[in-house]
Amino acid sequence: MASETDTLDTSIGKLLVAADQNGQNAVEDFVDPWNVHTSSMKGVDYDKLIKKFGCSAIDDSLIERFKRVAKVEEVHPLLRRGVFFSHRDLHVILDCVEKGQKFYLYTGRGPSSDAMHLGHLIPFLFTKWLQKIFDVPLIIQITDDEKYYWKDLSLEKVKEMAVENIKDIIAIGFPPEKTFIFTNLEYMGQSIGFQETLARIKKRVTFSQNRGLFGFSDSDCMGKLSFPFIQAVPSFSSAFPQIFKGNTDVPCLIPCGIDQDPYFRMTRDVAPRMKFLKPSLVHSKFFPALQGANTKMSASDPNSSIFLTDTEKQIKKKINKYAYSGGRDTVEEHREKGGDCSVDIPFKYLTYIEENDDKLGKIKEDYSSGVMLSGEIKNILIKKLTPIVLDHQTRKESITEDIVRGFMTPRQLLFDF
Amino acid sequence: MASETDTLDTSIGKLLVAADQNGQNAVEDFVDPWNVHTSSMKGVDYDKLIKKFGCSAIDDSLIERFKRVAKVEEVHPLLRRGVFFSHRDLHVILDCVEKGQKFYLYTGRGPSSDAMHLGHLIPFLFTKWLQKIFDVPLIIQITDDEKYYWKDLSLEKVKEMAVENIKDIIAIGFPPEKTFIFTNLEYMGQSIGFQETLARIKKRVTFSQNRGLFGFSDSDCMGKLSFPFIQAVPSFSSAFPQIFKGNTDVPCLIPCGIDQDPYFRMTRDVAPRMKFLKPSLVHSKFFPALQGANTKMSASDPNSSIFLTDTEKQIKKKINKYAYSGGRDTVEEHREKGGDCSVDIPFKYLTYIEENDDKLGKIKEDYSSGVMLSGEIKNILIKKLTPIVLDHQTRKESITEDIVRGFMTPRQLLFDF
Repeated sequence: MASETDTLDTSIGKLLVAADQNGQNAVEDFVDPWNVHTSSMKGVDYDKLIKKFGCSAIDDSLIERFKRVAKVEEVHPLLRRGVFFSHRDLHVILDCVEKGQKFYLYTGRGPSSDAMHLGHLIPFLFTKWLQKIFDVPLIIQITDDEKYYWKDLSLEKVKEMAVENIKDIIAIGFPPEKTFIFTNLEYMGQSIGFQETLARIKKRVTFSQNRGLFGFSDSDCMGKLSFPFIQAVPSFSSAFPQIFKGNTDVPCLIPCGIDQDPYFRMTRDVAPRMKFLKPSLVHSKFFPALQGANTKMSASDPNSSIFLTDTEKQIKKKINKYAYSGGRDTVEEHREKGGDCSVDIPFKYLTYIEENDDKLGKIKEDYSSGVMLSGEIKNILIKKLTPIVLDHQTRKESITEDIVRGFMTPRQLLFDF
Repeated sequence: MASETDTLDTSIGKLLVAADQNGQNAVEDFVDPWNVHTSSMKGVDYDKLIKKFGCSAIDDSLIERFKRVAKVEEVHPLLRRGVFFSHRDLHVILDCVEKGQKFYLYTGRGPSSDAMHLGHLIPFLFTKWLQKIFDVPLIIQITDDEKYYWKDLSLEKVKEMAVENIKDIIAIGFPPEKTFIFTNLEYMGQSIGFQETLARIKKRVTFSQNRGLFGFSDSDCMGKLSFPFIQAVPSFSSAFPQIFKGNTDVPCLIPCGIDQDPYFRMTRDVAPRMKFLKPSLVHSKFFPALQGANTKMSASDPNSSIFLTDTEKQIKKKINKYAYSGGRDTVEEHREKGGDCSVDIPFKYLTYIEENDDKLGKIKEDYSSGVMLSGEIKNILIKKLTPIVLDHQTRKESITEDIVRGFMTPRQLLFDF
């Protein structure tokens, strides 16, 4: 049964999250699948975003249920620290698991440059954990077509970028017998199931709904206007006949950035009319740019991001030079007042990658009290991050074209459906 | 080089062919890919349509050149009688033939009902002749997706209809080793070449151009808005890697109804920007409904058409009861003034199916002079048409699912590219 929040509010195209208009410092956050802006260095007001989008906060009781159902002592740091902070129908997936029914994971990525950055890595780490604890198939969509329509790039270039990105994703460590990675430009020409699912969706969304959700303009190319449906398709198991053997009723859980929610609000709106299941979602916050949490990391600005291709020296230099600090102007002031963790980028990054809660707690305590200086917290981040990036590079070097081809081959996975 | 008439005039969405506005009887013809209306029983004013669309009339000198190049003594009756009356860049195809270069034919059909009618058959007869005299590959697109988006039909139903229609088309007698027939819903999921060509087109047409050309409204579904590009794709050999071996420069000739021209005006507009060849076109007039030439045969009105599934009795009854007559009210008046061949449906139908010019000339003479009565010309049509339809039915009965599958299998044809 559709809940009230599932009504397709197409005004979301603007996605303006108005802050308190009574105050003098009225702030508006802008969030859509292509842009994130806020004037607050603390980042987007996620409570307001949840309200505006009509999704649900992940609260303690949901995390407790998650632990019971998944039979884990603790959930992933990204979940318990609120990076994955919002959901739609996550309880439906937990119900499945309780009943011993299999679901599948679907996530994706737009290959925006040759190299992936840290912000791209994070959701995949969480997805990897989900796949491991639930032992389910994972489907990863690479939206090379999206980049082709949105950027001034040739088809050949976006295809190259896609392969580079797939190597990065494989290097994260997904099991090949349980993971299917595809590019849209290729798999759409390989799967009648995908095409039929696409047609079913496109019959059920009008132009005005589409424009309302995504804010398209008259001068946008038709590739852009047709793209949302292609991102919707993998939410339905009908798109993957080799994996699901024609079973069109396999529940789907989508871990994604909150900015991707409009795609799946549309998907969830059409699903019952197609007599298909609505996909469930878990949403992450944005990974902040080095320059501060008022915007997200962008692959198009090399200094806004730590890339997975950066050298030890580049990582050190970028963090020292560009990472927005919550430290005070002078050592004396810092010792007295302490650093501000709510805007400090090195601390924020550590909440993503320092898995040990005690260590992170100690850092927070020392930094907030002024015991730890800005240079020191930056050094901790550099020491923690450098091996993560360098180890990734080593793993990536061993990913051959054959391995890529293996992941990309439409095939049966190690599950019976 | 693009000629002036190739400028993409998107105002064509309305396709209103205004007649002389000075006269009292101002008439407006309406022609788009889904509807044809005119208030004249003589049919659409094709001279005005050519002007409005910016295409070129097929004149005697072009037909003479055609005969020389194709090395035929006479062209097909549908060409010499002006049913195929207009073209775009037909001379480009003739240039190819002169240089010994191969081109290919592309035509299509929207499966609008279980049975095809006579109006659907006619362009295929001409296409068959073209394939034979030039010995070239023929590609036939069945737009099951179009019908799915435009009609209240299930995916399963349009797929069934498509197979029925393909059997009818095969029964016309196309050589399997030189002909590829595909449905969109299937082949789009079988060809990466198709998908990449589609993406190249969709990147280069804006929403406002699309709306201008086809007159889409806000409440139209996104399937409709994306369809024109799918009809455009087969104009490019890049969509058929099995047939053309990656050769993206094979010229294409499209025989189609004049109402389909907006699709290919769009296609020809984007082609140079994709660095692909513009397809050439030959346009046919509409096959008139039994009720008169002011509209075209429609599969949705069983009495407007002779279906390829009609019995001898039905054919006889429909022609006698519904065929609009150019005869006079009384035998006396008819003997005196003669019948009016310009509006007489039995005569018009005979111009499509009576291949012998002398016989047709004699019928026209006798009918116009009043020697031949309405009942008599109807009888001539019934006698000529009945065996055509019944023979078609016999041939169709022998078309098995295996034969259909053979035509629909993406494969190399009997040509080297």
